[in-house]
Amino acid sequence: MERTLIEDLPKCLEEQVLIKGWVERIRELSTVTFLIVRDRTGRVQVTADPRLLAQLRIATESVVAVCGTVAPEPRAKAGYELVAESIDVLAGAANLPININGPVLQVPLELILDYRVLSLRHARINPIFKIQAALVHGFQTFLNQEGFVQVFTPKIVASGTEGGSELFSLQYFGETAYLGQSPQFYKQMLMGAGYERVYEVGHVYRAEKHATSRHLNEYVSLDLEMGFIESEDDVMELENRLLAFMFNYVAEQCPRELAALEVEVPEVPSIPRVPFTEALVILEQEFGKGGLQDLDPEGERLLCQYVRDSTGSEFVFVTDYPWEKRPMYTMPKEGGLTCSFDLLFRGLEITTGGQRIHTYELLAENTRKKGLHPDAFAFYLRSFSFGMPPHGGLAIGLERLTAQLLGLPNVREASLFPRDRHRLTPWLGRR
Amino acid sequence: MERTLIEDLPKCLEEQVLIKGWVERIRELSTVTFLIVRDRTGRVQVTADPRLLAQLRIATESVVAVCGTVAPEPRAKAGYELVAESIDVLAGAANLPININGPVLQVPLELILDYRVLSLRHARINPIFKIQAALVHGFQTFLNQEGFVQVFTPKIVASGTEGGSELFSLQYFGETAYLGQSPQFYKQMLMGAGYERVYEVGHVYRAEKHATSRHLNEYVSLDLEMGFIESEDDVMELENRLLAFMFNYVAEQCPRELAALEVEVPEVPSIPRVPFTEALVILEQEFGKGGLQDLDPEGERLLCQYVRDSTGSEFVFVTDYPWEKRPMYTMPKEGGLTCSFDLLFRGLEITTGGQRIHTYELLAENTRKKGLHPDAFAFYLRSFSFGMPPHGGLAIGLERLTAQLLGLPNVREASLFPRDRHRLTPWLGRR
Repeated sequence: MERTLIEDLPKCLEEQVLIKGWVERIRELSTVTFLIVRDRTGRVQVTADPRLLAQLRIATESVVAVCGTVAPEPRAKAGYELVAESIDVLAGAANLPININGPVLQVPLELILDYRVLSLRHARINPIFKIQAALVHGFQTFLNQEGFVQVFTPKIVASGTEGGSELFSLQYFGETAYLGQSPQFYKQMLMGAGYERVYEVGHVYRAEKHATSRHLNEYVSLDLEMGFIESEDDVMELENRLLAFMFNYVAEQCPRELAALEVEVPEVPSIPRVPFTEALVILEQEFGKGGLQDLDPEGERLLCQYVRDSTGSEFVFVTDYPWEKRPMYTMPKEGGLTCSFDLLFRGLEITTGGQRIHTYELLAENTRKKGLHPDAFAFYLRSFSFGMPPHGGLAIGLERLTAQLLGLPNVREASLFPRDRHRLTPWLGRR
Repeated sequence: MERTLIEDLPKCLEEQVLIKGWVERIRELSTVTFLIVRDRTGRVQVTADPRLLAQLRIATESVVAVCGTVAPEPRAKAGYELVAESIDVLAGAANLPININGPVLQVPLELILDYRVLSLRHARINPIFKIQAALVHGFQTFLNQEGFVQVFTPKIVASGTEGGSELFSLQYFGETAYLGQSPQFYKQMLMGAGYERVYEVGHVYRAEKHATSRHLNEYVSLDLEMGFIESEDDVMELENRLLAFMFNYVAEQCPRELAALEVEVPEVPSIPRVPFTEALVILEQEFGKGGLQDLDPEGERLLCQYVRDSTGSEFVFVTDYPWEKRPMYTMPKEGGLTCSFDLLFRGLEITTGGQRIHTYELLAENTRKKGLHPDAFAFYLRSFSFGMPPHGGLAIGLERLTAQLLGLPNVREASLFPRDRHRLTPWLGRR
């Protein structure tokens, strides 16, 4: 007999079906036992004669196959239930370290991550990663429509994109190699290779020691790069449309998951832009935060609060960062500034982007001005002498975007199996 | 003025347009200069008054913007040409190390990879990665339709999936960590986490020293895992439909790229299945290759030849591998065999898959029988005591699939920036 998914049961009233899933709850009365069975599409109440279950000793979270008839039942929440005729245990469950079947998982984050396979079953955790998948698929779908090509570039690299700090190093057949901090060099080279528009969904690595609610040592970067732009405005304009598409896509694809998390997807407006120096003035004048050289986490939160209160937008582009604050590939503009931007969403930076330098001479000069040796980047630099179009791009941190959209206080909650300074397996310190 | 893509020029006859791209060829006559300009969508002939070009000294592969009028011209191959009114050089090109504008790139593979940014512009190389992107998008689209969730699992891991050989090691905050050979453990754990069906498109790492035309040290693995299967047949049946979808998708999305490579996408038939031991018998009886213990590369080629000649299929599933040849997570079956398969396509293995063990007791026992210590996999093993559905899955090597579909003799040709024993940057030995 073919398995029926629980979401399809309303179409099978009075029919005999086979369902498979996890036993979420068991309530034994004298003449009847109620089970709640859960599969990837939903939950259903199963009623069984206690004699059917007597020999099975089913524990909660066991995996079962239930054959039975779908019967209308006004007292059941769904209006129907499954009356069991036979029950098989496909795999038992024992000694569960946490109880995952309350409405909210009252367990510290460290334990949630320790017992990830269990905690991911929870009704308020499981949907996070279906929504994340929809964000990614929205990113891919929109960019395909816009003529972008999905690419895959190496993560084992010979040098860092930004001069070598905070890199994980590894042994590569007797040489020292590193894990890529960003596909920056490669996505730029692919502009020169004639693809003009590329995107990549891939892991990036930062060997940063600090453990904050905003950082992961391995995370997923949604990268894109586009050729023949006029300025960084073209990149911001594209990101504005991209985010609107992604958010609409999630709202369409994940109504059940969003409802489970009680999240409403916000409208993406025409996103306001604030130059970096003006942002510092706002922080001083509006919030008394004077003397700042950069936007610290509190500054990002306050700036977002100011923009939301004055324009209604939960997003803000901070533009025109000073030359000192941007890597050597960033296109300079007059006044010691650069053609660059960050995007803040609900108080957190989720994107860095900008126009890049596209001529060999200027790039070599800027590399030297940054105190870096052009030889260290020869394979990258030389490709700029073969005809490189003007171009720019951006990177979105997937876990940060997910966390901000869903109101998760810690970015680790938006990573299936996060890697941080203390966590190299799902099980803290225990392999 | 907005840029017009070259593929849209036929819609703009007699109109003034602005195109941007690379100068592929220059032919100077006394009264007129012909340029071939290329962008990501095609090529067009540009005619210019030599005086327009006199001061510019345009070299081939420079990046230009040409403003002009689209004029019917029966002598031009496309039936029209662009009559230039002004030309700007956006970025020059100089000292090109290889000539990329012949019909075939007559350059050794090592040089093609050394000068990747140039070689990727070639008319017979550029399309490879647009086709590869369509294969991936076909994979993602089909699996989304089938209820799979796209996931991202860590590549920095505490132990190998198959016992620790051929792993790249790295320092992780004072501990030794490794680069993942496969998302195997994580995709299985996500079965237990209730997603039931997941896929991942991500890098995997093999520290294999041998340099063959079939191996890369870093490659893209198309992984999937599905719960509540009856046997490995369900996984093979899904892969059969998946490949048919992916190939149709490529044929629909990439007609221009396939034509440029003179490739016809084959029909994916109902794929024949040959048990492993029978495959060895065929090799002995049909080809005189006796005494084989395993399918070597020549054996894979001969078996595919036999199956193609006898059934017409360019694919063959080899099934029921002996227990000794499969990792500890593979579901055993009677006769010392396993519920496992490989898929060969045109003489090369492109997939390994099978049903996995889903109960804690059997997995712990099989781990010990393989001579491995269960403690090394505790975080993985323990998740099997929390209720794990029967499940199975597979992994497709993206570069191998691309190479076999397009008839590329070396898998490196199907990787944008391949990593092999001698190549840690695009530039051989020169960073």
